Formats: sequence, C-alpha cells, structure tokens
Amino acid sequence: MIVIMSPGAEEEDVQQVIAKVEEAGLEVHLSRGVEHTLVGLVGDTRQLTVEELEVLPGVQRAMRIMQPFKLVSREFRVERTVVDVGGVKVGAKEPVFMAGPCAVEDRESLFETAEAVADCGAQILRGGAFKPRTSPYSFQGLGQEGLRLLAQARERTGLKIVTEVMSAGDVEMVSQVADILQVGARNMQNYSLLRAVGSADRPVLLKRGMMSSVQEWLMAAEYIVSEGNTQVILCERGIRTFEKYTRNTLDLSSIPLVKKLSHLPVVADPSHSTGRRDLVVPMAEAAIAAGADGLLVEVHPRPEQALCDGAQSLTLEGFARLVDRVGAISSAKMTVVAADDGGS
Amino acid sequence: MIVIMSPGAEEEDVQQVIAKVEEAGLEVHLSRGVEHTLVGLVGDTRQLTVEELEVLPGVQRAMRIMQPFKLVSREFRVERTVVDVGGVKVGAKEPVFMAGPCAVEDRESLFETAEAVADCGAQILRGGAFKPRTSPYSFQGLGQEGLRLLAQARERTGLKIVTEVMSAGDVEMVSQVADILQVGARNMQNYSLLRAVGSADRPVLLKRGMMSSVQEWLMAAEYIVSEGNTQVILCERGIRTFEKYTRNTLDLSSIPLVKKLSHLPVVADPSHSTGRRDLVVPMAEAAIAAGADGLLVEVHPRPEQALCDGAQSLTLEGFARLVDRVGAISSAKMTVVAADDGGS
Amino acid sequence: MIVIMSPGAEEEDVQQVIAKVEEAGLEVHLSRGVEHTLVGLVGDTRQLTVEELEVLPGVQRAMRIMQPFKLVSREFRVERTVVDVGGVKVGAKEPVFMAGPCAVEDRESLFETAEAVADCGAQILRGGAFKPRTSPYSFQGLGQEGLRLLAQARERTGLKIVTEVMSAGDVEMVSQVADILQVGARNMQNYSLLRAVGSADRPVLLKRGMMSSVQEWLMAAEYIVSEGNTQVILCERGIRTFEKYTRNTLDLSSIPLVKKLSHLPVVADPSHSTGRRDLVVPMAEAAIAAGADGLLVEVHPRPEQALCDGAQSLTLEGFARLVDRVGAISSAKMTVVAADDGGS
Amino acid sequence: MIVIMSPGAEEEDVQQVIAKVEEAGLEVHLSRGVEHTLVGLVGDTRQLTVEELEVLPGVQRAMRIMQPFKLVSREFRVERTVVDVGGVKVGAKEPVFMAGPCAVEDRESLFETAEAVADCGAQILRGGAFKPRTSPYSFQGLGQEGLRLLAQARERTGLKIVTEVMSAGDVEMVSQVADILQVGARNMQNYSLLRAVGSADRPVLLKRGMMSSVQEWLMAAEYIVSEGNTQVILCERGIRTFEKYTRNTLDLSSIPLVKKLSHLPVVADPSHSTGRRDLVVPMAEAAIAAGADGLLVEVHPRPEQALCDGAQSLTLEGFARLVDRVGAISSAKMTVVAADDGGS
Repeated sequence: MIVIMSPGAEEEDVQQVIAKVEEAGLEVHLSRGVEHTLVGLVGDTRQLTVEELEVLPGVQRAMRIMQPFKLVSREFRVERTVVDVGGVKVGAKEPVFMAGPCAVEDRESLFETAEAVADCGAQILRGGAFKPRTSPYSFQGLGQEGLRLLAQARERTGLKIVTEVMSAGDVEMVSQVADILQVGARNMQNYSLLRAVGSADRPVLLKRGMMSSVQEWLMAAEYIVSEGNTQVILCERGIRTFEKYTRNTLDLSSIPLVKKLSHLPVVADPSHSTGRRDLVVPMAEAAIAAGADGLLVEVHPRPEQALCDGAQSLTLEGFARLVDRVGAISSAKMTVVAADDGGS
Repeated sequence: MIVIMSPGAEEEDVQQVIAKVEEAGLEVHLSRGVEHTLVGLVGDTRQLTVEELEVLPGVQRAMRIMQPFKLVSREFRVERTVVDVGGVKVGAKEPVFMAGPCAVEDRESLFETAEAVADCGAQILRGGAFKPRTSPYSFQGLGQEGLRLLAQARERTGLKIVTEVMSAGDVEMVSQVADILQVGARNMQNYSLLRAVGSADRPVLLKRGMMSSVQEWLMAAEYIVSEGNTQVILCERGIRTFEKYTRNTLDLSSIPLVKKLSHLPVVADPSHSTGRRDLVVPMAEAAIAAGADGLLVEVHPRPEQALCDGAQSLTLEGFARLVDRVGAISSAKMTVVAADDGGS
Repeated sequence: MIVIMSPGAEEEDVQQVIAKVEEAGLEVHLSRGVEHTLVGLVGDTRQLTVEELEVLPGVQRAMRIMQPFKLVSREFRVERTVVDVGGVKVGAKEPVFMAGPCAVEDRESLFETAEAVADCGAQILRGGAFKPRTSPYSFQGLGQEGLRLLAQARERTGLKIVTEVMSAGDVEMVSQVADILQVGARNMQNYSLLRAVGSADRPVLLKRGMMSSVQEWLMAAEYIVSEGNTQVILCERGIRTFEKYTRNTLDLSSIPLVKKLSHLPVVADPSHSTGRRDLVVPMAEAAIAAGADGLLVEVHPRPEQALCDGAQSLTLEGFARLVDRVGAISSAKMTVVAADDGGS
Repeated sequence: MIVIMSPGAEEEDVQQVIAKVEEAGLEVHLSRGVEHTLVGLVGDTRQLTVEELEVLPGVQRAMRIMQPFKLVSREFRVERTVVDVGGVKVGAKEPVFMAGPCAVEDRESLFETAEAVADCGAQILRGGAFKPRTSPYSFQGLGQEGLRLLAQARERTGLKIVTEVMSAGDVEMVSQVADILQVGARNMQNYSLLRAVGSADRPVLLKRGMMSSVQEWLMAAEYIVSEGNTQVILCERGIRTFEKYTRNTLDLSSIPLVKKLSHLPVVADPSHSTGRRDLVVPMAEAAIAAGADGLLVEVHPRPEQALCDGAQSLTLEGFARLVDRVGAISSAKMTVVAADDGGS
C-alpha cells in the first residue's frame, strides 16, 4: 500500500501516518518528492483499509497495490484447485455439467430429469429445496421433503447433488444431503452464512452477487477459505445492468479474469443470467470457449409447467443439444491449447 | 394481470392459459382482437408470476398491472404509518435524526458522541456492534460488548438505539438492546433474516440493497410485514452505478416515489451513499427537501481515528451544522406545504 | 502522476519509464522502496494518459493525482463563473428557472407557455426545434420554423432562449436565435460539436451524458473552454441505472461535487431524469437544497397533447407550484448559509 | 400496441384515447373487462410512442407488442444480410478478422502491422485517423494524413479498410478511403451522423454505445437503413457497468440476441471492451462461440509504444495465436451445427 500526501501536508501529518502504519506492525519507506511525499507500507497490509488511511489529515490518496484477498489468490497458491465431489473433478480438464430443475417440485419430474441429464453425461444434479424468492407469495420450495427427493434421485442415478442453503442455521441439515452447498447470489455477502459453510466439510458453489464486483466475489470466497474450507467453486451468473432484453448480463470476461487472479475453479450459469431459453445454448458455448470449468444449467421436462423459472429452462432435448455443442467447443479448445505451449 | 397471446397462437394455447389461471382460483376475461387475443385475469394475482405465464406456449407477453406488493402499499392502507420508537415518531411531521459512529469502538468515544448528538437534537443513536465487512481481515465489531455499551449510552442520554442484526439467529439477542433492528443493505434479500425480524416486536429499519430496485425493496418490506411486524422504516442508502467519485449514488427520487407507492416512512443515509464527508450536509438537505422523514448520519468525534468509515463521518461540529441547515429546509418546506392544499 | 513498478521490474524497465516521461518534457523523482520502485512525475501531466504508462514493461500501475481537467477546475480559477445571459445571471445567488415545452409545437401553445412561465418568474424559455429522437419515425422537431417561433416568443415575453443544437454544421444557424446553445446528453461526447460550440459566442448548456461519469462531463466542458468559450453551464439530467420506476436516476450528489471540483455553474433537470410528472416538484426542491444554480423544467399547457415527453411535463399550474416551493427552499438555504461562515 | 385504462377511467377518457389512435390512422379494438378497459391498436404503430399514450387521462399503461424497429428486423427480412466489402463477406459462414492499431501512427508501424495481420489471415485493416478522445489534450489522430497511409497500406496488402468517421461533415472525405465507415460508440446516437452515413455508398460498422440498450442500438441501425444504406454491420464492444477490473463489460448475450431480432451481421470487439490484453484471446473465442460473424481486434507491433490503447493491443504474435484459437472454435461450431438441423 502507498499513501500519497497532499502537496500542502504538514510534517505532523506525515508523522501521524507513520504512527498509524507502525501501530499496525508494518514498516514504512518514506520518499519526499517535489510535489508529494509518499509513504510506502512494507509488510502484510490486508488488515488496513484504504479508507482508514485516507481519512488522516494531509493524506490525498491511499492505494492498495496487492490484491486484498490472499488465500484464494494465485500468489498464495500457484497450482489450480481441483474440487473433488465424490470423484467428480471440478477444475480438471473436462467441463462438468450440473443440470436439473430450478426447484425440486415432485418425485416424478425430478427423477425423469435426473435420468435424462445423467444419460446426456451430466455428473451433478441441481435442484432447489429452499428457494429465495423476491415475493413472499411465490413458491418457496419443498424444504426438507425436497432434500429427501434429491437424496433418492442420487441413489437412483449416481449423480452428485448441488442445492442451495439459505442460512447459517440450515447448513448442518442441508449438508446431510448435499454433495455441494450452493450459496446463492443474493447471499453472496451474507457473512454469517459464508462463515458457516466455511466450517462445513462439503464443497461450496459460490454464486457471484448480481451487483458484486469480481473483487468482492473473491473476498467472499476468502471468507469461506479463511474458515478452513478450501473446496470452493465460483459461479458466474450474470450481473445487473441497464439492459432489459435479458434478465441479467452474463459477464464472461470474469471467467478468464478469475482464472488469472485465483486458483479456484469457475463455472457459468447461462440460465439465470439470460433468463431466456433461446440464449442458453450459445452462452453455454461461449462460457466454455472463455475457459469455464463447467456449467450450471436449468433443465425441466415440461418447462411450461415449471413452478419457477420455466422461461429459462431447457427441455430434455435442449439439454442434449447443449451437451453436444459444448462438447465440440471444449474438444477443439483442448486440442489447440495442447498444441500451443504459451499462455495468453 | 393481462396475458397477450402471439399472433399465431392456437386455440389450445389459449385454453391452456385459461386452465392455468382458473387453477389458481382466478377468473378470466377473454378478448379476441384482430392481431392478438388477450386474457385478462380477474382477482388477486400476486401468487402468479409473470414468468410462469410467459412460459406457456403461444404467449407473447404477460404483464402485471397491479403492484406485486400488497400490505405495504397505499392501496392497502391509505393512512401513513408512523413508527413509534418509545415515543420518538418516525413518519410524523418533524424529521428524525439518527446519528452516531459507524461502529461502536469504545465506551469513551461512544458516550462523547451520544451526548453531543443528543445536544444537537438527535433522538436516536446509531452504532454497529456487529459489522458486515467485505474483508474477513477488517474489524468486525465488538459484538455483545458493543451492545452493552449502546445500552449504557441510552441510559445516560435517553437516546433510542438503532443497531444492525446480521442473521436470524441473532435477532433475539440484539432485540434485548435495540429499539430499532437494522437490516443492512447486503442483507436486504436475506429472507431468513427478513422473516425473523418480521416476528420480532421491535421496529425494523430496512436499508435498500445497493443492487435493489425500489420494487424489490418494497417486496422485502412485504416479507417483514407479512410476518406480522408492521413497524418498518425504509432507508435509502444509495445504489451502485458506474460513477466513481462517490461510493454509491444516492437515489433521492426513491423518496417521493416510495411515498407514492407505500404508507411506510422513509429516511435517507447521506453518509454511506456518498462516502465523502464534504457531501453529507448538502445531500442531507436535499433528502429532506425531497420529503424524507429523517436521516441516518455517521458522526465521530475524531473521524481520523475511526475504525471504520471515518472518511464519511461528520465531526461533532459538522453534525451541529447539518442539524441547523436541515432544520431550515424542513421548516420552509412545512410552511409552504401547509399554505398549499394540493398534492403535486 | 506516480508510476509504481512491479516487484520484479528490471532496471531497464525503470529506465524506459524515465525516458518516456522525460520525452514528454517532464521531470522525474525516483524512489526505490523495499518492494516497489516509484517514479514520480513532476510538471503538467495532462498530456500523458495512465494507459500509455501502464503499458510499459515492468509497470504495475500508474495513477493520476491531479484531476485530468484544468481550465474548468477550481485550482485554475477559484472564483465562481457567473454566466451572463443577456442580463440573466446563472451562478449568482438566485436560482434561475428555464422552463418550456420539450419541443416547439406551434405558435399558440408556445406563446401560452412562454407567457405563463414568465408570469411565474422564469427567466429563460426552453424548447427544442431540433429533437434527437431514438426512433427515426418519431417527431423530429419543427427545425428552422421552430427557431423562428422561439425568436417571436422572446420578443413577446422578454424571456431568453435555450435550445438544442445537434451538429457542428448547425451551430451558426442556431446561434442566430439561441441565447444559450444546449448540447444534449446523447451528444456530450460528440467532440466535433463540442469544438464548434467552443468557438461560438453564445453560452453553452452542457447536459451530462446519461452514462457519463462526472469526470467525463467535466472533460467535455474542458473541450468547450479550451476552444475559448468560457461561458459553460453544466446540467445534471440523470444517469442510467438498473432502476425502472424512473426513466433515469437523478444523481444529485453530482451537484455539490461539481461545485467542489469546478468553478462552473450547474443546474438540474428534474423532468428528463425522472420521466414522471409527480416526481418533478420534489426533485426540483431537492436539487436546489443540494446547491443547484437553477432548474431546467418541462412545462406544457396541455401535457396530454404534447408531441413529446408529455408524461413528465408540468402543467402551467404545476409550474407555479414548483416556483413557490423551490423559492421557499432557496430562501431558507440562503438565510442559513449567510448566518454560517463555514464551508461544509 | 395495447392501452390499458385505469380501473377508475371515465368513458370520456376512453374516447380520447380512441380519438388519438384514429387520428394517427390506426384502427381500434376495444375490450371492456371487469377491472380494466383495454384499447388494442390495429395497424403500424411505430409512429406512436408509449409516452404519448400514457400521458392521456385515465390511461394506466401503454405497451408496445411489436418491436419499434422495422427495416432491420427479421420480420421484415427473414434472410440474413451478408455485407460485401469488395469481395470480403461479413455475415457469411467464415468469421472475418478486422485487425490493426487503435490509431494510425506512422507509415512504418502501420505497414508492419498490416502485413503481419494479412499473413495471419485478416481480411480487413482497422486503424483510426480521426480519434474521439475523452481529453482535449490527448493525441487526436493524424487526420487526413492517416487516411492517406491507410490507402497505401491497402494498396500494399490488399486488405480492406475500416476507419472511423466522427461527424456528418467528414463522411464524404472519409468515404474516399474507407471501405467501411465506422461509427464509434460515443456517436451511436449522433443522429446527424447516422443520417449522413445512411446516405453514403459504403458499408457501415455501427458500434454499440457503451450506454445503449440492444433496442437503442437496433434503432440507430434503423436510422441508417431508413436513409437507404442497408449495408450495416453491428459491433458489440462492451457496456458500462460497475465492474472495475475490466474497462467495460463485453455483453456477449447481445450476439445471439441480435441474431434473433435482426438480419444484420454482428461482430465483437474484445479489445475495447476488456481493455486488457490478457483477456482478448479468450473473449474472442467466446464471441465466436456465441455466434459472432467476426472480430475487431487491436494489434500493434510494439504495444508499449502505442500512442493509444496499448494496454489492450495484442502483439503480432498474440494475434497469430488468436486466429489459431478462434479458427479451431469456429470449425468445431460449424461442424456440430451442420450435423444438427434444429434451432436452439
């Protein structure tokens, strides 16, 4: 971190900055320029915020040079994390497909979907038992009954289960069924929940908040990892912008960006981000081309009867086509990357 | 709600829409136009979502005509809600000042601040004991010790206390001290928490999420009220935009808008929204001119030593000036409105 | 400007930065820290961009410390600019009202509006003769005939005229009638137009682009002033965000911010920003409370017959009420500021 | 278009709506429901705006059912437009590469770049002679000298030329050299310019404004086509959001969306949108996977010496790798699509 003093800063202002920095156990490198005096901080500055330095008298600006996250960064760990979900590897070469209905609705349609997506090559079944809904009057999920159905679907198909947990108090209960605990976009900065899943012994799928920066998203992952759970999968699901044709704007540049900044695997959700079935397949292809480690896709045997998010759900046939197309992109990408030693 | 069928919709598509609507206990008014057939829904449509109708075959668009919230709307209750916080009325004529440090730091500075803001005319002391922080390495608040200090400050000054509760599991504990339970911006769609404060017997200050539309904000209030707690105060605290000079963009148009749509009182937070001390006073004046029922303001005796958000905290003198200026605006506004019978 | 070298930067990288800086006629202050070497630039750095320094090998980050604008800044000119529009002073104490229809439609309604707003105390008549419209099929304005009607309205009422000019080629023609040349939000970065109005001898009203930062807005003003025309009035008219209840989000924090950064006067447009008649009056009050030097307001005798933007136009009675209410706020503000010597 | 009357609308309100609609030469289909009366408009409603109907007394909402654009829509023309640039087909099967420096700087580096990108398989040379720059103090391009150099580079390499035109007055001059006239993002709603290039006999590359919705972008194309020039290539170049790691957010969902809504070809610019060289290749791959018809890429032999946008320019080697990788994705996509008859 570097602190830039204002042109008119007094010597006592400089000394106050130095005192604050040393109080935090850091060393100081001072440089007196023609216009500005600069105070360089030497050591681990993550405990200090830019704001608490900028508030000091005579300070013009403070700026962080290192990223504010540590455990999730590539500087901390060069090797990529591969999250092992009972044998399914997320972050290894092959893209992982997580597919299923928005919400678990009933046994029959869940099993039908699970069998179909397993046949297409999906490895993980998604489905919400607890649903965060904007309106208190909307269907809120089947709750524990939904968890039971997911467990049965796993037994029947061998698929692993990813399902959302909405509050710290539910982590233990949901962990009894889930192979991956999903933290939803609206809860990305629910710190009680982040700490709770950070203490669970299940991998976590952390969705990006729809108005969260990449930095905040990685800081949320840092919360989880700092509690001891290193098995975090990031999930880009679109950010909120002014564009209205799509529900959100899928920010695919976050995929290669996160892979630069962090060792964690990252998947994309082309269903929630677009909100439109007709955009799911091309955006799935694009996500894999951008380097995503997998996809989270909504699939429903009869989208027009879905209790939530039918408009963005693929049919079973649609999902089969998605797997085909994504497979072709993925193979082409692996071949050309293998032929080329360089990075980008 | 109205459903507009596509030009090419088949009769069976129309019948499927009618069946879906009737299944939900609603009646149908059908109109066959030259280009489009329209299906009007008669009855309370809040349980249906636009999405589940738009997903049906042959449907071009569904649109809600009534607002999706009910209990918080002015249609439901014409008379304005005045929230009574132990005698302090929020939503009555006079603006209410809630002031204090971002976080409770220590007894001495808390008491100093409390006494000073009380002297200026503030009625409510703000101060965080539990702090949601982007980084796990930042100061997270004093916790229960902070609550104890707030209780002592109340005893000393007579100020009421507003303080944040971060998870459903903490509502009972925080309620033992707080006169108003604050739900922070990052938790605005933490539905477990909304339900929990909806069952508490304390007024709730509901901050607008920095990524939330006015409609989502009112839907979050609807969650609380639908659990039985009608004592909700809305708080506009800025939304996230592309502008970088300010931390967030204070959306003051939400103030008169919310007063049109809802009977709940609304206050503004000029501190978090701007993130800059030099903008707090003018934005406080503007908020009151726009019709806000009060202000939530960060004040610290020595902002340069604050453990969080010092850059946006007013000094004690600064707060005195704010009260002066806001008082002048408020009096002028009340006088001219009284002289004028019309609405706008 | 300060250039921060990466921890692993080579000596030749540092030398390349120094060479680039010296080539631009600036001096260098070098500081070798424990982790980073810093290169401070001494002199006027506005000709260099952050990007052209950051692209050099071994550079981690370059940051500008001074604002990138000069002529419009308060450092360059401490005294506030008062724009004199034929005797009407914009930026002096009293707020200036610019009112009239969105577009000039016909003689009768223009005269009716002009007389009514003049009676209420407006000093300047607004009205578009050339209209930028999203659709090529919408009414595009009366063109030169509109200008003639505006000239006649001025003669009749004594009001000054502000009207939009849409391209560099039209500046001369529009200047023959306009007392103030308006540059619209969509043209804020039309540099040919900015240069052309910068050479005109008419004051310019520069609307903020709906997705322009305050810095870009001031840079656009810098284009005009750098051509020699110092008579620039800034106009905040709302920015584009995700909120859908209002057409745009009026960013009132830009008002006190611009007054900190620049000596130019700034007015607000509560009509275009909200797009809703029922929000115009409270937002006008708020703008004045925030420190705006005036208002640009759409007024139409029969908004339901307006050819454009009727939904946000005040009636003549509505405008009379606006002037009343704004006047009360403005007087209160002037009184309390006069009683108080301090800044904010 | 459908007009929904308020529950309390009077009969005379309904009659006023009918009168307004019939005045516009349209017919009316009236439906009196239990709660709402609906007025359906029959005929071409593009000349009416939602706003001018919503302003009428008793109207609750008006909504457009058809898209507001016509000539650029797929309803108007089912067959895809292929823009023929002197034999180079944009919108045919193979992706088209447009590559070159941000700005034309000097003969030597332009020729070096042109030859290198031609060798890699690019068909079109990009390079700005007139540069729109945020600051009046930045390099503004070589102007006519730049055009001359572009013409020479074409002669030498056979590449076609795409270059920006910044104002209506320059269209004729720039057309003497350009094979494609580029309208920049900041000028997307400069209607004088749109009309001028609409009358030129050169294909137009229309960049999406960074603040523009897909609908506004297509309306801007409609301006051009309605003047008679049907040879329009759309270019997605990123929109402005709150995310700060990237310069803009490349909205790749706009690619398949535009291909649904319009018959015009669409290319992507992964350089400006990301602003970071390390993201250009993966985002180029993603754009092609999403269905883009080509790419606009900044390439510079020595990015660290570039006069503008060096940070996002690929080296010549980087561009060679991009062509390789994109080629692999494109081939894979064409193969799998050919094997599959269905749509998505």
